[in-house]
Amino acid sequence: MEPVTAGIDLGGTKIQAVVTRGGEVAGSDRMLTPYGGDVQSVIEAVVSTIHASLSSAGSSARDLRAVGIGTPGSIEQETGVVSHAANVPGFGDRVELGQLLYDALDGIPVAVGNDVDVGVLGEHRRGAGRPFHNLLGVWIGTGVGGGIILDGALWHGRGAAGELGHIVVEPDGRLCTCGRRGCLEAYAGRIGMERRARKLVKDGQRTKLFKIMERRGRDRLTSGVYAQALDEGDKLTKRLVDEAAWALGIALASVQNMLDLEAIVVGGGLGDRLGQRFLDRVFAEMAPRLFVRDEPPTMLLSELGDLAGAVGAAVLAGG
Amino acid sequence: MEPVTAGIDLGGTKIQAVVTRGGEVAGSDRMLTPYGGDVQSVIEAVVSTIHASLSSAGSSARDLRAVGIGTPGSIEQETGVVSHAANVPGFGDRVELGQLLYDALDGIPVAVGNDVDVGVLGEHRRGAGRPFHNLLGVWIGTGVGGGIILDGALWHGRGAAGELGHIVVEPDGRLCTCGRRGCLEAYAGRIGMERRARKLVKDGQRTKLFKIMERRGRDRLTSGVYAQALDEGDKLTKRLVDEAAWALGIALASVQNMLDLEAIVVGGGLGDRLGQRFLDRVFAEMAPRLFVRDEPPTMLLSELGDLAGAVGAAVLAGG
Repeated sequence: MEPVTAGIDLGGTKIQAVVTRGGEVAGSDRMLTPYGGDVQSVIEAVVSTIHASLSSAGSSARDLRAVGIGTPGSIEQETGVVSHAANVPGFGDRVELGQLLYDALDGIPVAVGNDVDVGVLGEHRRGAGRPFHNLLGVWIGTGVGGGIILDGALWHGRGAAGELGHIVVEPDGRLCTCGRRGCLEAYAGRIGMERRARKLVKDGQRTKLFKIMERRGRDRLTSGVYAQALDEGDKLTKRLVDEAAWALGIALASVQNMLDLEAIVVGGGLGDRLGQRFLDRVFAEMAPRLFVRDEPPTMLLSELGDLAGAVGAAVLAGG
Repeated sequence: MEPVTAGIDLGGTKIQAVVTRGGEVAGSDRMLTPYGGDVQSVIEAVVSTIHASLSSAGSSARDLRAVGIGTPGSIEQETGVVSHAANVPGFGDRVELGQLLYDALDGIPVAVGNDVDVGVLGEHRRGAGRPFHNLLGVWIGTGVGGGIILDGALWHGRGAAGELGHIVVEPDGRLCTCGRRGCLEAYAGRIGMERRARKLVKDGQRTKLFKIMERRGRDRLTSGVYAQALDEGDKLTKRLVDEAAWALGIALASVQNMLDLEAIVVGGGLGDRLGQRFLDRVFAEMAPRLFVRDEPPTMLLSELGDLAGAVGAAVLAGG
């Protein structure tokens, strides 16, 4: 059989795997991230999704050439050590993810990357960003992450580049989960928006958000909850989304004024759900703040959607 | 004689030239930019400073291998055409600076760059930035310019990168010369600060700034005027400088959070004059806004000072 590569998007909620063959997605699988709270259960779940994806691609473990995995947190590129992946149950301070997965797979090479970085890499090589050499990927989910492609490669800086969510959009503005004030992420991520919604409700405003949340059996405002509330014409949700677009417009204009990129690709759970209408709102907020007004960057939605991270992880591993 | 390279920093007020031999400055000259208002007078003045620099280096026109020139405005790299260099008398909309200088020098190769870019290049290759591969140069003068060195080379984007002065530091904040609100440059450049000073005086506040300006026979607040007012303990000037440091702290933190650079070099007329105390103030405003707090970029003052642009222009031409 032709050799295949597996790509994994490891999240706090779910594990998404794909298998690629000749640069195309040949199979995939998804499961919930185990809540057991220990690293070993997560590794076992990852291995199990890899095997299920191999089956769905009509391949076997013998065909597997390499594995790439994207995870929240900071990554040491050479060693595959992950730190501060607070969202993944059991990951705590520091996990030797690369080595653990290599051992669990009986010696298959493993490449480890940051989840947003591999998502942006996926979109750049196999998705909406293919025509461009220089682009910014904006991942809007729990928070807001950024990935920068310069001259066709991910820009890491000293290892911590791309913290788009912590660009200051309003000095002394809303409190961010990072403890600072006025960060983009306090306005445009799911958590920041939920905090804002709860505050507005406490101040006496009305919204369908929490009813929709309960009806869907969730305990937090998911991307789907926001999208449905918007569809139902919920005014408070519209306000939250407008505020998010405003903050994104400021941050993206600042990045664009500095880097003069060709394109901006918007993805992530919330980005995907809010879609083109939201992208248009963000552009409308960004455009008047661009220094070079007559040459704005091309604005694109993620093409790979949910699979961007897993596909990018496979790309990272050479697949 | 050993071959030499000339580097020119063409400004709205003065023309600074250097001649480099074996990578070292061997001679220099400076003159006021002609106020005649035609391009030809500027070209003649540039040629004349080149000749004076050659003399001061003990070289002649026969030894001149190449010329680099930094100018305000947007540059077409391949053709050496300059647009929007509004500060240079007679430059109007578009000047074929590379070709005109090539002709005036009887066929010596000419490289044309943006003035801030070549200043940052000078500091990177021959000044404070030598130990680093990735840095941001912040040029504080009339306005605020930025130059980004990534992996050892200037980052141009599509040709308009580095507009640090137009990062938004306060939504709906002060009016900038670019017509937008809240740009860094409205807080931290000479023009923005002079506007602010005039407004505060109009509102009844007192300052020595304009008396110092008159005493020095100037019609605008130069870097020297600000520096002297600070030395004389002028409170309004201290406030302007504090506001500038605040705005720079926000903008630099945002850039750093995105790019995770090794160093930030501060130069330009006002940057040079305000010096280390100002650099410390900017750092104090930036540091709490960094996402990676324990690894701030190294903050440095320009080493080449007034010569940074001319030296960088020589570097651009291979000198």
